[in-house]
Amino acid sequence: MSAEPMNVKPVLGLFSGDLAVVNLGLEGFAETLAGRGVPTVQVDWKPPAGGRKDVIEALDAIARNPRVAEANAEALSRILAGKPTLVGIGTALDTVPGMARDLILHAGPPVAWKDMAGPLRGAVIGGLLYEGLASTPEEAQTLAASGKVRFEPCHHHSAVGPMAGVMTASMPVWIVENQAFGNRAYCTLNEGLGKVLRYGAYSREVLDRLRWMAERLAPVLAKALALRGPIDMKSLIAQVLQMGDEGHNRNRAGTSLVIRELAPHLALLDEPKEDISKVFSFLNGNDHFFLNLTMPSAKCTVDAALGIEASSVIATMARNGTEFGIRVSGLGERWFTGPASVVEGLYLPGFSAADAARDVGDSVITETSGIGGFAMAAAPAIVKFVGGTPEDALNVTRRMYEITVGENDAYRIPALDFRGTPTGIDVCKVVETGILPAINTGIAHREPGIGMVGAGLVKPPANCFTDAVLAFAEKYGN
Amino acid sequence: MSAEPMNVKPVLGLFSGDLAVVNLGLEGFAETLAGRGVPTVQVDWKPPAGGRKDVIEALDAIARNPRVAEANAEALSRILAGKPTLVGIGTALDTVPGMARDLILHAGPPVAWKDMAGPLRGAVIGGLLYEGLASTPEEAQTLAASGKVRFEPCHHHSAVGPMAGVMTASMPVWIVENQAFGNRAYCTLNEGLGKVLRYGAYSREVLDRLRWMAERLAPVLAKALALRGPIDMKSLIAQVLQMGDEGHNRNRAGTSLVIRELAPHLALLDEPKEDISKVFSFLNGNDHFFLNLTMPSAKCTVDAALGIEASSVIATMARNGTEFGIRVSGLGERWFTGPASVVEGLYLPGFSAADAARDVGDSVITETSGIGGFAMAAAPAIVKFVGGTPEDALNVTRRMYEITVGENDAYRIPALDFRGTPTGIDVCKVVETGILPAINTGIAHREPGIGMVGAGLVKPPANCFTDAVLAFAEKYGN
Repeated sequence: MSAEPMNVKPVLGLFSGDLAVVNLGLEGFAETLAGRGVPTVQVDWKPPAGGRKDVIEALDAIARNPRVAEANAEALSRILAGKPTLVGIGTALDTVPGMARDLILHAGPPVAWKDMAGPLRGAVIGGLLYEGLASTPEEAQTLAASGKVRFEPCHHHSAVGPMAGVMTASMPVWIVENQAFGNRAYCTLNEGLGKVLRYGAYSREVLDRLRWMAERLAPVLAKALALRGPIDMKSLIAQVLQMGDEGHNRNRAGTSLVIRELAPHLALLDEPKEDISKVFSFLNGNDHFFLNLTMPSAKCTVDAALGIEASSVIATMARNGTEFGIRVSGLGERWFTGPASVVEGLYLPGFSAADAARDVGDSVITETSGIGGFAMAAAPAIVKFVGGTPEDALNVTRRMYEITVGENDAYRIPALDFRGTPTGIDVCKVVETGILPAINTGIAHREPGIGMVGAGLVKPPANCFTDAVLAFAEKYGN
Repeated sequence: MSAEPMNVKPVLGLFSGDLAVVNLGLEGFAETLAGRGVPTVQVDWKPPAGGRKDVIEALDAIARNPRVAEANAEALSRILAGKPTLVGIGTALDTVPGMARDLILHAGPPVAWKDMAGPLRGAVIGGLLYEGLASTPEEAQTLAASGKVRFEPCHHHSAVGPMAGVMTASMPVWIVENQAFGNRAYCTLNEGLGKVLRYGAYSREVLDRLRWMAERLAPVLAKALALRGPIDMKSLIAQVLQMGDEGHNRNRAGTSLVIRELAPHLALLDEPKEDISKVFSFLNGNDHFFLNLTMPSAKCTVDAALGIEASSVIATMARNGTEFGIRVSGLGERWFTGPASVVEGLYLPGFSAADAARDVGDSVITETSGIGGFAMAAAPAIVKFVGGTPEDALNVTRRMYEITVGENDAYRIPALDFRGTPTGIDVCKVVETGILPAINTGIAHREPGIGMVGAGLVKPPANCFTDAVLAFAEKYGN
């Protein structure tokens, strides 16, 4: 295991000048010397694993196992071989494995009602009202607390959901199949921005929209998709990375391409033309429509890399608004969690950081698969949404190459000379370098019932990665 | 007038090292000295205006006239104030000023039948067949040579046409209005790539497509547009520059956005659904559809800057396949021309440079207005179409700031930290620096009847800029 300094340039510069003091790490020493006129070069070095002895030993033990590198190569090759394909739309109850009328799926790792954050509570209330299991928000809260409905992560049912990620039995879902491995993933249809269920809103407007989506939008789209035939999502995602999207929070190109692909078939349907027109208007009015397609595409792609013996590749990252959790390929279904973080970003008019809920949603599956924050260099204009400069966006992607196993051969970034996106996060590299996965995300209001207040960048909690490395060493360390 | 060296870095480097010989210009001197072990710094300096004394005097005389800078500021402000808006679709005969049944409009400056290049001849033959003025290609050629049909530039009729740019009386045309100044511009609808009239093809397939476009596509789109209301083209162009298009040869985002805007209204029409579906399929199958909208948008924008006393801003650039021509604001309708150049680029399978016609088309109106080649930094993926690297694309845009009067306040480039595109080409700056406007373009086959063979970058002939400067000095030099 090597411990490379993060910035070696000042050291190399040394050899062309006079001798000087080189200070690694703590800046205080360098400042003292510099204050006395001693030429000093400060190197921004950090000890690996933050200097924790048990973690360094764990990383060393893992590094001594030659099977890990092989297993990670296998994980990467499965991710790259993935062929996510949109094959249809179904109803959750009939489609999603294990779905039931008394079951509410949510984003992130498991969480009990009493521990749920505002946006998730709001979305649960909305979901119970939508299903007719409660008739007032108060009734819904009583029911949620009663133990008569069950809560489970989307991820336990081959599903993903953005933000609160609430999926109930009668909601329509996209069906995306990984045609290289035969596994499927499911996701609800995107509602748009603002007052929407996934941001914890549950007003009449929100529920009416969900009903229209189930009764008209989904059936119409399903018929058009059946006429069109399956859509190669890998090709679409590869294209949108050439069109200023990064597949998580900038989806204008992706949404446009889906409209183009479906339009000739929507036009042929035996449906009232007003309905077809309303479907087009809804899609045109919602630039995030494509997000709920990239998510299950990413999910079915990385699911094929979960459960490979001795692989330290992260196969799941997800947040429920209370906790951020990861699952590591070689450790199977086990979650490692830490407290969900506060998002740093830009706020909608009238809102500030004081209104922000903590990081929430399964949409970080996009980063897990090598797009989203990992592909920000492809989407310089996203900084208008999440903050920062285009140069920051380039640097976010460049840094992610340090914690990934390889590069995507289909998803390429024009601004980086068509380099493949950094793909296959190695939990050992994360802990060794201290570089956390870059995630961009929307921000929900902290209280139930309000909705979106902004968007930004968020750092996951470091401890879930460290805990995973310790557990991994216990199982696979030599 | 200053003569800045093109690359000053090696000179600045001097002051931190030992003394050395600095050689400006001809590299032979530096090579000789370097061969003898003398430390030498080569500066890539060129004399202004290529060292031509008459041209240097003309530039000096223009520089002594303070009205020129004021007039150029006025030209820039008119270009920036432009508000190109898509208002409808009409038939050329009823819509385009001065259009007539015996008149064929073409791209570029004026050219007689006997001097026309292959693609233009091919498109004229196709246009005469399409109008029923001839029934065989041979008859069409005889008619074209007979003097019984007239040829005039699109630009003389407030119109523009890509490649051959042939417009005949019964063709449908987009109507784009500059709502800041009230002037309009017209352009045919884009046919797609491959065997199409604008690349000089005139087979049955080409003519059948043109008839379907006139009989079904245009009326259907016109009705949808009437329902939708006018479309703000400035907003769409600003958006596509954030989505990997540059508005000339990469139009996938633009075409997608137009489909999105029109789809809800297309769906509402009382037309056979098969026709609506075919319209969607045609648009989805033709990523260059948006080009014929950016072109009249650019045309009506820069037309407002033509004819400003003492302005040296270029208001028109266009090529007819034989000659490249420009018009300068302060010199009004007068063309300055030079021989059309050979395009350097990538060829479709089965074709090579030996098949290439010379540079042709009015589409360089996009560069004239500050997009297209001038905005290549917004479209790094375009290098897959025209050749080069993404870094080349950035550099093309950066260099254009040296020959333009200002920067666009609406058209911005994410990768350059949202800097406005270089806008308002000053013919004096072109001649002084020797930096020619950067143009990217399609390549037609040199023979009539074949079609597209590739795409690439092209340099306009230097003499038309020099001739314009001499004429400008004669009128406005002090």
